[in-house]
Amino acid sequence: MKNEVVLASASPRRQELLKNIFDEFKIVPADIDENISENIDAELRPEKIAEKKAAHIAKQYPESLVIGCDTAVICDREMLGKPKDKADAERMLRMLSGRSHKVITGNCLIFREKKLCFSVVTEVVFYPLSDSDIDSYLAIDEWKDKAGAYGIQGKAGLFVEKINGDYNNVVGLPCAELNRKIKEMY
Amino acid sequence: MKNEVVLASASPRRQELLKNIFDEFKIVPADIDENISENIDAELRPEKIAEKKAAHIAKQYPESLVIGCDTAVICDREMLGKPKDKADAERMLRMLSGRSHKVITGNCLIFREKKLCFSVVTEVVFYPLSDSDIDSYLAIDEWKDKAGAYGIQGKAGLFVEKINGDYNNVVGLPCAELNRKIKEMY
Repeated sequence: MKNEVVLASASPRRQELLKNIFDEFKIVPADIDENISENIDAELRPEKIAEKKAAHIAKQYPESLVIGCDTAVICDREMLGKPKDKADAERMLRMLSGRSHKVITGNCLIFREKKLCFSVVTEVVFYPLSDSDIDSYLAIDEWKDKAGAYGIQGKAGLFVEKINGDYNNVVGLPCAELNRKIKEMY
Repeated sequence: MKNEVVLASASPRRQELLKNIFDEFKIVPADIDENISENIDAELRPEKIAEKKAAHIAKQYPESLVIGCDTAVICDREMLGKPKDKADAERMLRMLSGRSHKVITGNCLIFREKKLCFSVVTEVVFYPLSDSDIDSYLAIDEWKDKAGAYGIQGKAGLFVEKINGDYNNVVGLPCAELNRKIKEMY
C-alpha cells in the first residue's frame, strides 16, 4: 500500500502492534477532548472517541489513511478509563478481581472520503486477587496510563484466568480485525 | 522464594514469560527423546513429554524447583509439532485455516520429592487464510521451530480471529496457572 498511514495514538503498545500490518507509518497523537455525551451507551463510547481522534488528524493529513483508536474496560456497566491515581487504580483492580469484564477497543479508519468505524470486544476473566497481589502490582508502575489499571502483556498477565476474543484488542489494537477492515477499504 | 529455579526449556518465549514469575532462574534445556508411546492420548502427550524433561533435569538439580513444558497444536485429532520443513509448515497452515484448533501446554513441576503435572488448553480460531497470506508468512522465518508452524505473538497474530483461554499458553507458557501451581507446591 503506497498511501501514507497515520496512527492517531501516542500508545507505544499500539505502535508496536501496528507494525504487524505496516512496515512504515507516521505517529500523530490526537490531542482532543475525550468527553462524550452521557447519552451514548458506554459500549459505543470508545468508537465515538476513536472517530473524534481520526477526524481531527484527517484534517491535517487529507491524503492519508488515518487510524484512530480508543480502549476502555467495562465492568458492572461502569466504564473504566485510565486511573487518576494509585487509589483509583486500587479501586479498579478490586472491582475486576475474581470475575469477568469486557475490554472494548473502538476504531475509526478515515481514507479520503471514506470512513469506517467498528468496535471489537474481548471478555477477560480475572482470578481472585489477594491483597498481596494488588499491593505488589501497585508498587510497580505498570498500572499507570492503562485503561482498567492493568497491562495484560505485563505482570498483570498473572491475574488473567482466560480471555474470550482477540488478545491484541486487550493490549490496545485489534490488529487482525483492523487488517481486514483496511483491506475492505482500499 | 529462595530456592533455585530451573527452566528445562530452550524456548526464548518461555524464558521471557517466566520472568513474570521469577526475577532469576537458570535455563537448562533438556535434551531428551521426545517420542512417547502411541497408546497415550494426544492431549496427554505434552504433559508426558514435560514430565520427561523435568525428571531429566531434576536429577542434575535435586535441590531446585524444576519446570518442564511442552506445547503442541491439536487439529482433527492430529498432533502438530514443529514443522519438519517449509512444505510441512504449509500443510499445517492450510489445515488450521478458517477453523478452530487447540493449543495444549503440558507442564511438570518437580521440587525435591514433590511432583505436579498439569495441562492447560486454549482454543484458537483462525480466519480463513488466502494463498497470499500463507505465501507471505512462509517467506518470513517465523514458522520455524514453532508447534503448528505459527507464532501468535508475531505476524500470525493477524490470522487469529479469537482465542478462548490463556493467551500465554499459546505462546508456550501458561504463566498465570503455573504461578498458582507453584504456590500450591511450596
